[in-house]
Amino acid sequence: MTTRTLHLNAFLMGVGHHEAAWRHPRTEPARLTDVRHYQQLARVAERGRLDSLFLADGLALQGDVRHNALGGLEPLTLLSALATVTDHIGLIATVSTTYNEPFHVARKFASLDHISGGRAGWNIVTSAAEAEARNFGIERPAHADRYARATEFLEVVTKLWDSWEDDAVVGDRRAGLYADAGRIHPLDHDGTHFRVRGPLNTSRTPQGHPLLVQAGSSQDGKEFAARFAEAVFTAQQTLAEGQEFYADLKGRMARYGRNPGELLVLPGISPIIGSTEREALRLEKELEDLIIPAYGLAQLSHMTGIELSHDDLDRPLPEVSVETEGAQSRRKLVIDLARRENLTVRRLLGRLAGGRGHRVVAGTPEQIADEIQVWFENGAADGFNIMPPTLPGGLEDFVDHVVPELQIRGLFRREYEGRTLRENYGLARPASRYAAPARDEELDAVVAS
Amino acid sequence: MTTRTLHLNAFLMGVGHHEAAWRHPRTEPARLTDVRHYQQLARVAERGRLDSLFLADGLALQGDVRHNALGGLEPLTLLSALATVTDHIGLIATVSTTYNEPFHVARKFASLDHISGGRAGWNIVTSAAEAEARNFGIERPAHADRYARATEFLEVVTKLWDSWEDDAVVGDRRAGLYADAGRIHPLDHDGTHFRVRGPLNTSRTPQGHPLLVQAGSSQDGKEFAARFAEAVFTAQQTLAEGQEFYADLKGRMARYGRNPGELLVLPGISPIIGSTEREALRLEKELEDLIIPAYGLAQLSHMTGIELSHDDLDRPLPEVSVETEGAQSRRKLVIDLARRENLTVRRLLGRLAGGRGHRVVAGTPEQIADEIQVWFENGAADGFNIMPPTLPGGLEDFVDHVVPELQIRGLFRREYEGRTLRENYGLARPASRYAAPARDEELDAVVAS
Ligand SMILES: Cc1cc2nc3c(=O)[nH]c(=O)nc-3n(C[C@H](O)[C@H](O)[C@H](O)COP(=O)(O)O)c2cc1C
Ligand SMILES: Cc1cc2nc3c(=O)[nH]c(=O)nc-3n(C[C@H](O)[C@H](O)[C@H](O)COP(=O)(O)O)c2cc1C
Repeated sequence: MTTRTLHLNAFLMGVGHHEAAWRHPRTEPARLTDVRHYQQLARVAERGRLDSLFLADGLALQGDVRHNALGGLEPLTLLSALATVTDHIGLIATVSTTYNEPFHVARKFASLDHISGGRAGWNIVTSAAEAEARNFGIERPAHADRYARATEFLEVVTKLWDSWEDDAVVGDRRAGLYADAGRIHPLDHDGTHFRVRGPLNTSRTPQGHPLLVQAGSSQDGKEFAARFAEAVFTAQQTLAEGQEFYADLKGRMARYGRNPGELLVLPGISPIIGSTEREALRLEKELEDLIIPAYGLAQLSHMTGIELSHDDLDRPLPEVSVETEGAQSRRKLVIDLARRENLTVRRLLGRLAGGRGHRVVAGTPEQIADEIQVWFENGAADGFNIMPPTLPGGLEDFVDHVVPELQIRGLFRREYEGRTLRENYGLARPASRYAAPARDEELDAVVAS
Repeated sequence: MTTRTLHLNAFLMGVGHHEAAWRHPRTEPARLTDVRHYQQLARVAERGRLDSLFLADGLALQGDVRHNALGGLEPLTLLSALATVTDHIGLIATVSTTYNEPFHVARKFASLDHISGGRAGWNIVTSAAEAEARNFGIERPAHADRYARATEFLEVVTKLWDSWEDDAVVGDRRAGLYADAGRIHPLDHDGTHFRVRGPLNTSRTPQGHPLLVQAGSSQDGKEFAARFAEAVFTAQQTLAEGQEFYADLKGRMARYGRNPGELLVLPGISPIIGSTEREALRLEKELEDLIIPAYGLAQLSHMTGIELSHDDLDRPLPEVSVETEGAQSRRKLVIDLARRENLTVRRLLGRLAGGRGHRVVAGTPEQIADEIQVWFENGAADGFNIMPPTLPGGLEDFVDHVVPELQIRGLFRREYEGRTLRENYGLARPASRYAAPARDEELDAVVAS
């Protein structure tokens, strides 16, 4: 019997991951900017004992706003508001390293970690879109440069999180000593991209380091993940691809002195759930009938960098090379999928609408649980990134019907193990790099005496 | 009879504004990073029907952490968590224009405005301290350059807030039309400091523009306030100074086509409240006895730019010029105070400990209300920035004893007038600059037909 536990993340996305979700009677698109909508989702996910919830983000209005519900809330601002109505679930926000400063990012996640009692996580992205660069007055940096900056960014942020040792705050009112200044450290970081004096102006947080999450699957992306990430979201279509990715990523970790167990691989899955398979397929068809081809075409052009029009709908995807300065892994996945299954552009649109390249599984709760179990037990996943087609309905279905099935099979928790996101994910709390090793000797002396 | 209403802001600062607050038995310094502490403060302020609450901020650990409770939370992250436990009170966060990008700032305040149902406000600062520059790898820009950047920053942010017209979101599920793309506008801003394409990726917010607040009192600061600010926090020690500042600031507004009523001047006041005057003075003395001279000296050196040591304690403040690249108005206020009242450095420290240069008034609720009324009715204030010496105790005293007195005098509201911060402050909701005037003609045509 396995003692591994499955880990589940609720990927929240407006009124659902299906691109036509906002047109489906199960959703209310006006709730896109309503905090109560997200609070309800957070409570549902916590009722299902999910490890965490996650908000994606981009720094530009992308996609055709005529045909999709865009223009929602900024993740970090939103997560604080979710922290106050939940007790256990982890709160993961996407923030870019390309258009931010490490001091701000370190501080905001430190604040969220305090506010949530140790439940903050950071999905680190490098911002692949040119539209994002144009909101910051610069040309989009090359792919390799973005990852080089991200690497130094992480060094600085983790130093800032370490700059207050755990026991820096003394709080001795009588002596008038608030903090032990010797346990608060400047970084004096002086690198290629950043010069940061430090220390942070927020004290050490419950988790020490908010959890580091990553979602880029290019070579640079995987190398970055192997070095820093503690959880990885990824889009994998087949079990074989999932296994290859899993082994590849974990295999890279030794180079950075890390064990495979220190990183969880969470492939995305969009579960379309029915009480019978027929019902699930009917829901899938309902959503597909609401797709607006012009919207899907524009999205596909954006993902692949190929200009596409209505005339292309019933032809195969044109041949192109896979190298680009944008999002390499997403582009490759889409092109591979079209080639492998010999899809016309129209059929490719249908396949992508559900999860933008993530795996869509329509079926009964048992069938969904089967899929999850097979991947989990065959070296393709440590858990899943759950992407409900509609929200809140699709998340409620998952929590009410798939979670109990996973619990019956002994794959998933019935109660939270602890209070922090690290405890949910079974990951250690890092020590501050500045903590004086001298104190261990002192301790030994005390123990020996 | 006057129909003007007093406006009151609760300035929240850790466990109190008095620099020795953390040592006083009425506070719990461990609550500095506890969100429940701030939630309690927000609820108390809302119970008192205060217009807003406000969080200051700096981008470096400043002051001597050995002797003061530093290392708290980042304001924007915290305010979202306060939005969810309150219904009416405005939520004002400090964010710097010197070390941020307009796109991020516009978006975060837009999110907070959505999350709070129209209660967000931005205290715009230019970051006077050199320590802040060192966390962002640059030399601190000159005073005038900081304000020049701030001016363009505001142009960009307000354009971003306007980029979605009020009725841009259509939400027509049947037609598959989510938004009217013709009512979402790129800015194509191309200026000296910023190039920003836009539009924002968050839809138009309840207030249209989150409220603009400002707190710099140098010449550049006042000019900036006259142009953009809708509320101004300021430190004024005497009624005459208060009147002069008030007239000066309001007098500058016509130049920007604004009326004096479109900006509220809110001087700071730290009320030390007792049921008798003797009790108030005893509390003041208790706090003074907890001051650590070394801490005050370092703070004073920091504020004035003059190096000071214990040897200086019983001498007058050395002569210096007032021009500096740091915070000009605070420096001037402190130097003027020392000269006007002929204070030794030690006595100056006592005067500053209560409110870092803001007016401290110790007395009964009636005496505090008298002070407030005199300034309010004699052209020195539209309201006050309340800076309780200890928190939560000092805020509870104000709400339970001073607020009722102000209500009895007909100076302050008994119930909130509306739901947004603009409604609390009696300020109009701005229209989007991009809203097509053509539609007025259409309307005229409809009316005429
Ligand atoms: C599940 C998942 C979620 C993602 N979320 C975001 C996101 O919120 N913002 C973003 O800019 N990129 C997001 N990405 C994209 C990647 O993080 C990455 O930036 C992009 O793929 C480019 O990197 P690469 O070339 O290494 O793949 C996501 C990817 C996956 C698989
Ligand atoms: C009540 C009040 C609150 C302030 N809060 C902040 C703050 O939170 N952060 C900050 O950097 N400066 C703050 N300041 C300083 C001013 O905003 C301003 O940046 C500084 O005085 C320098 O500008 P000046 O030279 O125009 O005075 C505050 C000032 C006052 C009066």
